Amino acid sequence: METSLQVKIQNRTRDIEQIIYSYLPEETGYQKTVLAAMNYTMKAGGKRLRPMLMEETFRLFGGTDRKQIEPFMAAIEMIHTYSLIHDDLPAMDNDDYRRGRKTAHVVYGEAMAILAGDALLNYAFETAAKAFQGTADDIITAKAFRILASKPGIYGMIGGQAVDVETEQQQIPFEELLFIHENKTAALIECAMMIGAVLAGASDEEVRVVENIAKKTGLAFQIQDDILDRTSTQEELGKPVGSDEKNQKNTYVSMKGLSAAREDVIQYTKEAIDAFDSLHRENAFLRDLLRDLSGRKH
Amino acid sequence: METSLQVKIQNRTRDIEQIIYSYLPEETGYQKTVLAAMNYTMKAGGKRLRPMLMEETFRLFGGTDRKQIEPFMAAIEMIHTYSLIHDDLPAMDNDDYRRGRKTAHVVYGEAMAILAGDALLNYAFETAAKAFQGTADDIITAKAFRILASKPGIYGMIGGQAVDVETEQQQIPFEELLFIHENKTAALIECAMMIGAVLAGASDEEVRVVENIAKKTGLAFQIQDDILDRTSTQEELGKPVGSDEKNQKNTYVSMKGLSAAREDVIQYTKEAIDAFDSLHRENAFLRDLLRDLSGRKH
Repeated sequence: METSLQVKIQNRTRDIEQIIYSYLPEETGYQKTVLAAMNYTMKAGGKRLRPMLMEETFRLFGGTDRKQIEPFMAAIEMIHTYSLIHDDLPAMDNDDYRRGRKTAHVVYGEAMAILAGDALLNYAFETAAKAFQGTADDIITAKAFRILASKPGIYGMIGGQAVDVETEQQQIPFEELLFIHENKTAALIECAMMIGAVLAGASDEEVRVVENIAKKTGLAFQIQDDILDRTSTQEELGKPVGSDEKNQKNTYVSMKGLSAAREDVIQYTKEAIDAFDSLHRENAFLRDLLRDLSGRKH
Repeated sequence: METSLQVKIQNRTRDIEQIIYSYLPEETGYQKTVLAAMNYTMKAGGKRLRPMLMEETFRLFGGTDRKQIEPFMAAIEMIHTYSLIHDDLPAMDNDDYRRGRKTAHVVYGEAMAILAGDALLNYAFETAAKAFQGTADDIITAKAFRILASKPGIYGMIGGQAVDVETEQQQIPFEELLFIHENKTAALIECAMMIGAVLAGASDEEVRVVENIAKKTGLAFQIQDDILDRTSTQEELGKPVGSDEKNQKNTYVSMKGLSAAREDVIQYTKEAIDAFDSLHRENAFLRDLLRDLSGRKH
């Protein structure tokens, strides 16, 4: 059962990479180095979880027009990727490797990595804007655009990242840690699923339920991340473990303890699945995927 | 005559700052430091030339709906400002001062300056998206959005900036210098004026003429910048001169010589004004402003 889900996920990842790659810029012209730096990081692998959740939520609400959803799928992966490039910079986390590959600033230099990150963030909006057709459908696309422009920003992902950077090696209240997790991690998952729902024509009430599903899933996902960093081995995880402790990072585990953290993963996951079931819509793969995200081992 | 134009410009700058400030985020919440870093740089002064050109082009084509244009005026200034924050970073130009004030990374640290730049770029799109109303007007707004998402990006401003960074202290062909000037400087001026035209309902043909006016104006502006860096005094310019030579930068003056550069400023300005007059539309202030930009002493 679990194996079969993993195979399905791998297949979806492969399909989504085809879509994303079709939206990447060609590496030609005077600016080809920065274009190469953008594509280098976009092609660094990963599950492509955010576009996957977007597309499956689109399907959940009966969406079918691929020309409308695909630019947004590529766009959200560009936003996720630019955030990784900038997070890895020497002035930030100073990571030389990610998923076993050298990071952008190691390969292309710091200036080019800053610009490649800027370029990917900007290109995300340029790519999503390709969904505008000059017809009445633009009203729906504009609604999706507003979500794409808000959830990754200062009242979402960047806000969470800024507080995370600023409070490293400081004692913070638990509410502030929740703020970081909700914004740094959950906001982009909310963004993905809400855009899928909006583009498929979901009602405002349904979009609010989707936002809640995504928030709970994002929190469970991030807490599980904190747990794995403490309990997993480098072999299981495919990356060094114990880095949170080493960097004296505030984590769910360091603040609430391992067993309470595990209980909260179960609780948030249950709330996400209950909210999903309350929609009375069918997408067995998405339902399994949401459950799998928090129970994952890597 | 020239004095009276300068007074008019100062008055317009003051009005535009009111508009821009009304779109800046409040400095509250856990993420208040990064919000303060954004606003610190947004409030650092300058002529607010890009929103000014946008608004005056909007007027040129009879635009009146301020709710439609104002979010875009704020947005383009946010994009200009993020590019300054990132340009000044230690990994880029490493400038500690701009317009006599400490730069963002000096005041807030490098990590926060990177994030404040990211946040302003993202917030530009979030702000412009406020112009979407959920009505048929969104079709026009979407057209402006596509321009806002393309001209500052990899095939515009960032592209030019990347090539400029990469070719510092290298010999390059003259065509490559033109590419840098057209993209790093002119693209954002094109963006401003084209959005003003589109939002006022200009035809595609008129928008193309506006793009050409803006490109020629942007080139004249940048060449004049190169000339002033060589010929002006620190007192006249209000900033250190000779920095291009010191940094061994490729400039129009170093490649074509001072007298050819001066001729080309006159030629590009003439082409811009001729194109402007070919529109047969009235905005005497905009016409004077376009001429003034290339003839300026500071």
